[in-house]
Amino acid sequence: MSPVTYKLASEKTKETQHISDISVGKKIPLGKYLFQRVLSAGTKSIFGVPGDFNLPLLEHLYERDLVEQGLRWIGTCNELNAAYAADGFSRYSNKIGCLITTYGVGELSALNGVAGAFAENVKMLHIVGVAKSSAKHENKNIHHLIPNLHDSNFKRPNHKVYYEMVKDRVCCSAEYLENIDQACDQIDKVIRDIYRYSKPGYIFIPVDFVNELVETTNLLVTPVIDLESSLARPDEVTVIEVAQMIADWIYQSGNPGLVGDVLTDRYDATKMLNDFIQLTKMWNFTTVNGKSIIDESNPWYMGLYNGDEGVSTVIDRFHKCDLVLNFGLDINEINHGHYTFKYKPNSKIVELHPTYVRFLDTEYGTERLFKGLNFVFVLKELINRINPKECMFSYDLSVRKFCSEEIKTPEDGNDDAEASTITQNKLSKMIPDYLNPGDIVVCETGSFQFAMRDIVLPPQVKYMSQGFFLSIGTALPAAVGVGIALQDYPNQHINNFGAVDHNYKPRLILLEGDGAAQMTVQELTSMIRFQIPIEIMLWNNNGYTVERAILGPTRSYNDIMPWDWTKLFAAFGDFEGKYTRSTAIETTSKLLLKLNQLKNEGNRDIIEMVEVKLGVMDYPHQLKHMVEAAKVRQVRQ
Amino acid sequence: MSPVTYKLASEKTKETQHISDISVGKKIPLGKYLFQRVLSAGTKSIFGVPGDFNLPLLEHLYERDLVEQGLRWIGTCNELNAAYAADGFSRYSNKIGCLITTYGVGELSALNGVAGAFAENVKMLHIVGVAKSSAKHENKNIHHLIPNLHDSNFKRPNHKVYYEMVKDRVCCSAEYLENIDQACDQIDKVIRDIYRYSKPGYIFIPVDFVNELVETTNLLVTPVIDLESSLARPDEVTVIEVAQMIADWIYQSGNPGLVGDVLTDRYDATKMLNDFIQLTKMWNFTTVNGKSIIDESNPWYMGLYNGDEGVSTVIDRFHKCDLVLNFGLDINEINHGHYTFKYKPNSKIVELHPTYVRFLDTEYGTERLFKGLNFVFVLKELINRINPKECMFSYDLSVRKFCSEEIKTPEDGNDDAEASTITQNKLSKMIPDYLNPGDIVVCETGSFQFAMRDIVLPPQVKYMSQGFFLSIGTALPAAVGVGIALQDYPNQHINNFGAVDHNYKPRLILLEGDGAAQMTVQELTSMIRFQIPIEIMLWNNNGYTVERAILGPTRSYNDIMPWDWTKLFAAFGDFEGKYTRSTAIETTSKLLLKLNQLKNEGNRDIIEMVEVKLGVMDYPHQLKHMVEAAKVRQVRQ
Repeated sequence: MSPVTYKLASEKTKETQHISDISVGKKIPLGKYLFQRVLSAGTKSIFGVPGDFNLPLLEHLYERDLVEQGLRWIGTCNELNAAYAADGFSRYSNKIGCLITTYGVGELSALNGVAGAFAENVKMLHIVGVAKSSAKHENKNIHHLIPNLHDSNFKRPNHKVYYEMVKDRVCCSAEYLENIDQACDQIDKVIRDIYRYSKPGYIFIPVDFVNELVETTNLLVTPVIDLESSLARPDEVTVIEVAQMIADWIYQSGNPGLVGDVLTDRYDATKMLNDFIQLTKMWNFTTVNGKSIIDESNPWYMGLYNGDEGVSTVIDRFHKCDLVLNFGLDINEINHGHYTFKYKPNSKIVELHPTYVRFLDTEYGTERLFKGLNFVFVLKELINRINPKECMFSYDLSVRKFCSEEIKTPEDGNDDAEASTITQNKLSKMIPDYLNPGDIVVCETGSFQFAMRDIVLPPQVKYMSQGFFLSIGTALPAAVGVGIALQDYPNQHINNFGAVDHNYKPRLILLEGDGAAQMTVQELTSMIRFQIPIEIMLWNNNGYTVERAILGPTRSYNDIMPWDWTKLFAAFGDFEGKYTRSTAIETTSKLLLKLNQLKNEGNRDIIEMVEVKLGVMDYPHQLKHMVEAAKVRQVRQ
Repeated sequence: MSPVTYKLASEKTKETQHISDISVGKKIPLGKYLFQRVLSAGTKSIFGVPGDFNLPLLEHLYERDLVEQGLRWIGTCNELNAAYAADGFSRYSNKIGCLITTYGVGELSALNGVAGAFAENVKMLHIVGVAKSSAKHENKNIHHLIPNLHDSNFKRPNHKVYYEMVKDRVCCSAEYLENIDQACDQIDKVIRDIYRYSKPGYIFIPVDFVNELVETTNLLVTPVIDLESSLARPDEVTVIEVAQMIADWIYQSGNPGLVGDVLTDRYDATKMLNDFIQLTKMWNFTTVNGKSIIDESNPWYMGLYNGDEGVSTVIDRFHKCDLVLNFGLDINEINHGHYTFKYKPNSKIVELHPTYVRFLDTEYGTERLFKGLNFVFVLKELINRINPKECMFSYDLSVRKFCSEEIKTPEDGNDDAEASTITQNKLSKMIPDYLNPGDIVVCETGSFQFAMRDIVLPPQVKYMSQGFFLSIGTALPAAVGVGIALQDYPNQHINNFGAVDHNYKPRLILLEGDGAAQMTVQELTSMIRFQIPIEIMLWNNNGYTVERAILGPTRSYNDIMPWDWTKLFAAFGDFEGKYTRSTAIETTSKLLLKLNQLKNEGNRDIIEMVEVKLGVMDYPHQLKHMVEAAKVRQVRQ
């Protein structure tokens, strides 16, 4: 047995916790305990909106020793935006994105953001300030609470109605604090569950509990709760057995490939997977939801595989693989090309998931399933165990790494007068050049999201998009959350510093649609308020083009009110134009100049809004392809 | 037995339905059926946001005969705003406010607006476009749907998870259409339930059902569904008995009073109640949630009674009443002054509610409860039955009707230099003069809402505010909904035309706070898009002053980013300043001039934004009073 030398990423970034106020025998208010616990889980910034049921809790934000540890409040314009921001914060930092809302009115407003985090495996803690603990015994319809449908003038309302709505549905853990003696354990449980399941968790904290004194024992015994300590530790013999089985399959394979899917990143195994690629030189594929986990600059990057909906040359490559290691896989309609994801016939497959590792030999129809085994431990062991010299890959050397040029669009080679019009297909060729290694891209749900799938990203670019839940409007506040996370954990996403200039300050870029932006536009103000430098590409195509592609191209339901996007920041707080710069662009040549300027200029403190005018019915060929495939499916059914 | 001659309001406004396409034996698509049914329930305008699960349904919006009946789509910037707008639409029109959203992402975003409508007894129909009917048999994680927490790669998700969240919680009725043969009955049931319970209802319509053909029998048999036809008809003998009992108690009373509470309006009995007041000349009181149901210009108006939290002179008046008829009462924390609402000892009380009528004789401790009896029928019978000549009221003639001057504030008589600063107490004295008879006021949740309680409104003013659920940000989109309803049903709120000039076009006025406005600000654009003339008083006090009053007056969590409110419309679509006019005002004198101009000028087509600068810690005495009372309660507990 080889010594386990490979370290998990989390082991290296763990900071010594500074807990000045916590000592044996001392009691502290529950509100303080909660925030200390959030800090101990690695989260410094908390998003949210005040309300009378959470105000006494928010008071504890200002305790000096908590502030010294970096705790801060990021007030957003509304609760949905707070949830989206917390989502972005976690996607970037891999810490827990935390938001605080108030009973009913606040928590319900945030719900769609929580559900999105659930669907996309994002770590989120939603703390809700609720009615005082004695309220449940009272026959009172308190404000923010929905009364009973019948006999509400007589019957006691259900004070836990909102808790019951979310429990076991949009969260992996939900604790309603009802007994002060159990409150600390309940808080710790939710935080551990969030790391363990990489899903949102809820803490419902009664307004009268926050100043009750509680023991600090938990904080002393467990000063840090992080991803690694929250995972169930697997049996080491099993880990070794499984890793060896995978190694053996790799040694037997002539044409292996691996897929880097979304849960790889959520379980902090992104660097490990890229190291594994470098070690083995194995063909590798990304997915819709896993995009940018694999550093696409690696020489063995073979493209984004998405079943029948992907690029045909990528499908060809994928179907050459006689062994596929599918890391962190998440099977859903979007991520698996409307369930057209298929392995090569008679191939071997290893599914590596946070809750299971499964071996499938489709030639012999055999399966071995290891339930309860988190793939992260297996990957760690595999890296230590694999011997590249034993690998006998016989890749077809005429197959090169994937490049965007494999995609042909109608615009290619078209240099006529129309060439000045900006189209999304043209954009998809301009964007890769616009990005520098190490940049961070947040992409809104919408038509251009489809184009981003096949863009080959420069090294160490972090890409974030809500690829499966697909709630438009998420990206704008999520970018605020990413900006806050970048302040708290600069360059957290860069795991290969060789590829990025040490002095380079990564840019945060938001690719946003107009219809989506109208949903959550007020959060632009937080970029000024919290000093988040960002470049916003605002695709102005007069409505919901992604819906027009599906149905109703000229219907009024797909229209929105035309806005002047360049005037927003002046209203939203940059009265003298000190912090922002806004430009509207209509031609390809001007856009190229602008993108080039942004890419190369040293100014990294400004908020940049570029309103890019696009055709109402212009959308990328990938979306066209998907819509056509859907129509074919419909006819078949 | 006297002949029942008094007509319910709904009987008079009922329009002949125009159903050109509906004939015996003909089948129509379910989508068309649904919209025809919505029209038949009196609703022409539908709010919402498109999404791929509702697009095929939205196509039916454009069927010619439906458009001819006035059906139209009001696309809002996001789903929460759509729900708020539908809420405002219903509050004004007393029809059903209808919104359409898409599976998951849309319906969850709207949820807080639906819950608010539930808490405040607002008629709302939420139509959700959901996964196709066969999806439930498929093991697929489709987009917008949250997967299972465990084993989501293997286990079939719950396609009805969102339906299960809302059912029996935030709606009075929820039908998930799963069998096309029952779909029409299910739709009709939800619409009837909404009228019957005056709460939101849900219809979940699978995307593949909307083009399935259904029978038109229901539309032919029941061409109209309205409030009256949806109520369970009571036994006539009981109605007469109850009405006579009330009449007898009135005849025996020397000092009777009545309360006009919120459900009076929801059950369309506002005009009846005001007629009853004119008939009997009985002292009358309004409530927080019922404000403006009683025309406050009547000579026997005695103020807003809200338990200990109201004005002391009003409390005195209320406690002189030896009989109180409480019409449409809704008992909750806010509406009953934190449960300090008390009747005079040894008095008689009649509670008149949509689901019961209760007689209480507190002197003898006797009670008679008529369950299942809707007060509307009783009131109608009572008006026909009561003989004013038999009333023997012995009111103290020194008690005059309530006037706002009874409220003393620190500003009274203060003419010094500080007098130029605008305060909320001053505003509360300026607003009544600013209003014309017949105007419509929508007031945001926030500090100024408390001042509005005791303002005596001019005749026939309709006032709307979310007084109990208290979700900030509701009023702005709700005002859009009111504006749309005003287009569909002009002057619907005026039931005494003698008090309003026949040629007068009522103004729509929104009283809005800055913190609240930031929540839902994008919906300002809909005022331009749908040509809604409105006057917006934007109280700019740099944050959540209503929360500062409670806790954290200088805390950052109560801060918001300062905006230039006068620049918003230029970005939101009025590029050349044609449709809007925006002004910022800092002094009392300038504000008085502006209010006077708005009150008197003939221009009723413009959108007017008046940004009124207020002190950060300035709030009306009513809020101060409530906060102090809450502190006393806290100490006592």
